[in-house]
Amino acid sequence: MDEEPRTEILNATYRALCERGYADLTLQDIATEAERSKASIHYHYDTKEELFTAFLDHLYDRYMAQIETVSGETAREQLRSLFDTLLADGDAVPGTEFRTAMLEVKAQAPYNEGVQAKLIQFDEALLGRIQDILADGIETGEFDDSIEHELVAEFLTTAITGARTRGVAVDCSVERLDEMMIEYVETHLIGETTAEVPY
Amino acid sequence: MDEEPRTEILNATYRALCERGYADLTLQDIATEAERSKASIHYHYDTKEELFTAFLDHLYDRYMAQIETVSGETAREQLRSLFDTLLADGDAVPGTEFRTAMLEVKAQAPYNEGVQAKLIQFDEALLGRIQDILADGIETGEFDDSIEHELVAEFLTTAITGARTRGVAVDCSVERLDEMMIEYVETHLIGETTAEVPY
Repeated sequence: MDEEPRTEILNATYRALCERGYADLTLQDIATEAERSKASIHYHYDTKEELFTAFLDHLYDRYMAQIETVSGETAREQLRSLFDTLLADGDAVPGTEFRTAMLEVKAQAPYNEGVQAKLIQFDEALLGRIQDILADGIETGEFDDSIEHELVAEFLTTAITGARTRGVAVDCSVERLDEMMIEYVETHLIGETTAEVPY
Repeated sequence: MDEEPRTEILNATYRALCERGYADLTLQDIATEAERSKASIHYHYDTKEELFTAFLDHLYDRYMAQIETVSGETAREQLRSLFDTLLADGDAVPGTEFRTAMLEVKAQAPYNEGVQAKLIQFDEALLGRIQDILADGIETGEFDDSIEHELVAEFLTTAITGARTRGVAVDCSVERLDEMMIEYVETHLIGETTAEVPY
């Protein structure tokens, strides 16, 4: 089967999601956005659910590429770059509409096993990536070797999730929260400074 | 106007929200849940929006009472009790259904100024409460006086928000996240231990 129309449909799903949100999104909306007939969407995806699962897979691939290739020579720089990637405002990252739609998707997760399974993949990917960066940093002596890297990774994953939720729900500047995360790393994880500046 | 029916309606709104979620909730659902006619709901609240605003006010009062009266003699105990209140699983706290509905409400906030204004009140109340506990703890010498209490309060508010989102979205144990938060406080904020156990 031709990949091109599928990619077009997934891109149209992204735009339709930004425009209409998740709850009321229909295959017809996506067809309209893709300038295709509903039948031609059905030719590739039987149900809205099947299409949306494919869409989340597509997002996941992009997400993995993003978090795997964060820039930086050192663990400290990589962590900073990861936070910037996930929390920056501006043109380079998905805007409020998309973040809002994804929060809606999260709120549907308890009622949709397939969606929840995908969201768990996103969550685990981020958690694993942070764990790896921390473990590297401890090994090179950049981070304090007494940090419990699994616990810190869990905490940072939770804080990133919270920053994104607050960004949508209470219109909080995610950039400010990004700076807060970086300060946490600088204050608590860096060997020399931890004892001197204990927050 | 009699307060009793209004309270009944607000309680029915809570139950209907748990059962149906926010997006598709109608005044008719609430009327059915309250065992009242739709007309009698309209007698008290003109629109779904007006009812929902009153419902959020009602929740806010309960939330304030909850976070203002956390138990504990010391700041450290109060912070722990606050986390337990907001993150514990079990019968004493609202279940997954309600948390899920509230996440849905958060995802609607950018499209509804009134709802967002209320959510900002919840957020600010929590932030303020944590700031106060931290300031008290610094004053009594319980917390390290070098902590930037406004920044730490922002971080903890963000992490609590993230714990609740992850609890819904990826079915993460919020109790485990609660313990993680307590460990953060014990490791980073307590004067004597900070230098010795720098995470």
